[in-house]
Amino acid sequence: MSIVDIILKKRNGKFLSKEEIDFFIQGYTEGTIPDYQASSLLMAIYFQKMSKEETAYLTEAMMNSGQLVNLAGIEGIKVDKHSTGGVGDKTTIALGAMVAACGVPVAKMSGRGLGHTGGTIDKLESIPGFSVELSIDQFIENVNKIKIAVMGQTNDLAPADKKLYSLRDVTGTVDNISLIAGSIMSKKLAAGADAILLDVKTGNGAFMKDIDSSFELAREMVSIGNKMKRDTIAIVTDMDQPLGLAIGNSLEVKEAIETLKGNGPEDFTNLCEELGAYMLILAKKVSTVEEGKKMIQEVVKSGEALKVFKKFIASQGGDVDYIENIDLLPKSNYVYELKSEKTGYVSQIKAMDIGIAALLLGAGRERKDSIIDLSVGILLNKKVGDSVKKGEILANIHYNDELKKVLALEKLNYAYKITKDKPILRPLIHGIVSDTGIEKI
Amino acid sequence: MSIVDIILKKRNGKFLSKEEIDFFIQGYTEGTIPDYQASSLLMAIYFQKMSKEETAYLTEAMMNSGQLVNLAGIEGIKVDKHSTGGVGDKTTIALGAMVAACGVPVAKMSGRGLGHTGGTIDKLESIPGFSVELSIDQFIENVNKIKIAVMGQTNDLAPADKKLYSLRDVTGTVDNISLIAGSIMSKKLAAGADAILLDVKTGNGAFMKDIDSSFELAREMVSIGNKMKRDTIAIVTDMDQPLGLAIGNSLEVKEAIETLKGNGPEDFTNLCEELGAYMLILAKKVSTVEEGKKMIQEVVKSGEALKVFKKFIASQGGDVDYIENIDLLPKSNYVYELKSEKTGYVSQIKAMDIGIAALLLGAGRERKDSIIDLSVGILLNKKVGDSVKKGEILANIHYNDELKKVLALEKLNYAYKITKDKPILRPLIHGIVSDTGIEKI
Repeated sequence: MSIVDIILKKRNGKFLSKEEIDFFIQGYTEGTIPDYQASSLLMAIYFQKMSKEETAYLTEAMMNSGQLVNLAGIEGIKVDKHSTGGVGDKTTIALGAMVAACGVPVAKMSGRGLGHTGGTIDKLESIPGFSVELSIDQFIENVNKIKIAVMGQTNDLAPADKKLYSLRDVTGTVDNISLIAGSIMSKKLAAGADAILLDVKTGNGAFMKDIDSSFELAREMVSIGNKMKRDTIAIVTDMDQPLGLAIGNSLEVKEAIETLKGNGPEDFTNLCEELGAYMLILAKKVSTVEEGKKMIQEVVKSGEALKVFKKFIASQGGDVDYIENIDLLPKSNYVYELKSEKTGYVSQIKAMDIGIAALLLGAGRERKDSIIDLSVGILLNKKVGDSVKKGEILANIHYNDELKKVLALEKLNYAYKITKDKPILRPLIHGIVSDTGIEKI
Repeated sequence: MSIVDIILKKRNGKFLSKEEIDFFIQGYTEGTIPDYQASSLLMAIYFQKMSKEETAYLTEAMMNSGQLVNLAGIEGIKVDKHSTGGVGDKTTIALGAMVAACGVPVAKMSGRGLGHTGGTIDKLESIPGFSVELSIDQFIENVNKIKIAVMGQTNDLAPADKKLYSLRDVTGTVDNISLIAGSIMSKKLAAGADAILLDVKTGNGAFMKDIDSSFELAREMVSIGNKMKRDTIAIVTDMDQPLGLAIGNSLEVKEAIETLKGNGPEDFTNLCEELGAYMLILAKKVSTVEEGKKMIQEVVKSGEALKVFKKFIASQGGDVDYIENIDLLPKSNYVYELKSEKTGYVSQIKAMDIGIAALLLGAGRERKDSIIDLSVGILLNKKVGDSVKKGEILANIHYNDELKKVLALEKLNYAYKITKDKPILRPLIHGIVSDTGIEKI
């Protein structure tokens, strides 16, 4: 087998075999196939696309390029949830405890990565003492005992994907649906869950901006999951404005805790209930979405979800006083009130601009070695559809540095659109994709 | 300017500007743009093509990536001839002396390279003492005095092309007409001629196998030449069967000398006259093809062409006794007679198979460091259209090694097709491409 022949085959529009895709991924991971041949193959894939079969082979090969996490020691059906990422997305923090409180094991591997705010791990580190440095045995034991644990993602999880992703980023080959889907799914599959729930974000603040391509990505990932014999469902959810009210690490942890206490913002609460219901379905705890939502609502109302969250934080070294009294969590030195210059309706809050503003405040990482300021961020006072009077507060900017605030405000000016007429609201849930088809809502 | 943006622009089907193409070629030559970005851009170019303007910019940038040869010291219009390569193509050796004998300066830079047989320089080295190690001053002086000189191609001629060509070879991006045309023309333009005659081969033994793509390449190169203000004409000529009768280094030199003496094979003699006529037109020595052919025929008949050839060889250290008595030239130890197994007409001699057989005998280079056996090769006894009787000799195999002969014979078995009916002959000249349009013959 020769890599040049494989490049030519794909370039000429032919299908690659499992053996050819394995040869490429193995060779590239080991370094016998150089970057310049990989990048020309990626560009050929961009133009000629990959079939569902090829995409599954690619994903499987990337999954097998490193360690496969074995979760067999955990009792019950392990359901993993993955979000394609958005602004103000603190879902994992609240949802994990809710689902665990329903008796479903939540064994979450999470990364840090780059972004507008930190990842789930960074956010949770707002709670002093909390650590994700668990051995795999301790991780499994915690899940069996408390039903939930979060550990840092090992470096050896799908290393082929890591290498390919860096290459795609600098060779103009990021935006191909098979490569995107394969990248996400190879890591999820290597992490060892039995079933996977995908939260595919769509809109201004999402990786996929338009509805059609979001559904395409959802379909592609569900197809891979099912070909790899894992029950997989994708929910396409809105990310045109930020999720909830809080953007920033400790601000989001506060909001997640409030939501676990039953006092969360409406959209975020609804999203947790919806995603939670599908996780319960995948875990075969319930058979309908209604049943699932009800069960989630009950564990919140009874205080069971909050109790599980506290046990989880304590089991990983975190100080639970910070959960009981969220005012103890990191706070910025200053708060600036962003006021509306017009009277009318908030008809747009561009999630991407809000995210970049949060990044400029210091809430996220631009480079791998950037240091996150856990206390800064943005707290929305209005959401799309709300009426606003001139001079009324649109959002509170939590900041520590005057210059950073100025830069963030510049960005925030572009984020808002205030109109005379009340806007038509986008749905929170755009549709569900499963192996039985697509249900657009 | 960013190379990722340039890759994305081309990938998305936009035209690149002169500045962007210069940025790419300069960066790639200097090494600030790595191979993996160059190869993904090349693959994007393969799919999205380049306009005539982009192709000219690319060629100019590659031309400017190294030394530009200054031939201003040579009197008269310098016409360069370039062949896209084929089997048995010894044209430069005979044609150079013919045109020089007509008073047109021939200042030829030639390479060695890989191939079925050696390049022009290798072939000429069959004559003991002959050397192409000339300084540029000596080269110019020789051309002014004798009207012809051949020197080895400097390493610094269009280095960007050399680097890109090696990359294209291993990344599945060779066969794009703009990249092929730019590669050839950048070196021709850097070599400093005033006018360029291109011999674009077509057929089984050519780089371009079919007539349409051969004309496309011809048009592309003529377009570049004219955009770069050099009079450029392309002639599409046949390379379905080998040119002439001799394939192999010293065998071809013998045939070229015989042709200079007026005793060459019909097709090769005709090709020299045709190409020579167009070189004389480009040099403004004559104004019609008929006039040009006549002038070439006269310098052969009068012995002037042979005289110039001898002076040229002598001026570069070669022993002219070998020209007077060609039996002195390198000879193989053995000759094997390949006989026909059937009676009928020779209806095909696949040039590619003959070329590979010559390579297997040791006449060419498979790798850069291969050593050429100047004495071996194939001498055809029949050409397409000839009648042949069972047991009659089709070709003589000149060889030095029994095993190599066996391997070559295996290949030669596929080369011949003998049929009952006389085949329809392909024309030697398929058409002429100039800035005034295409004249298909």
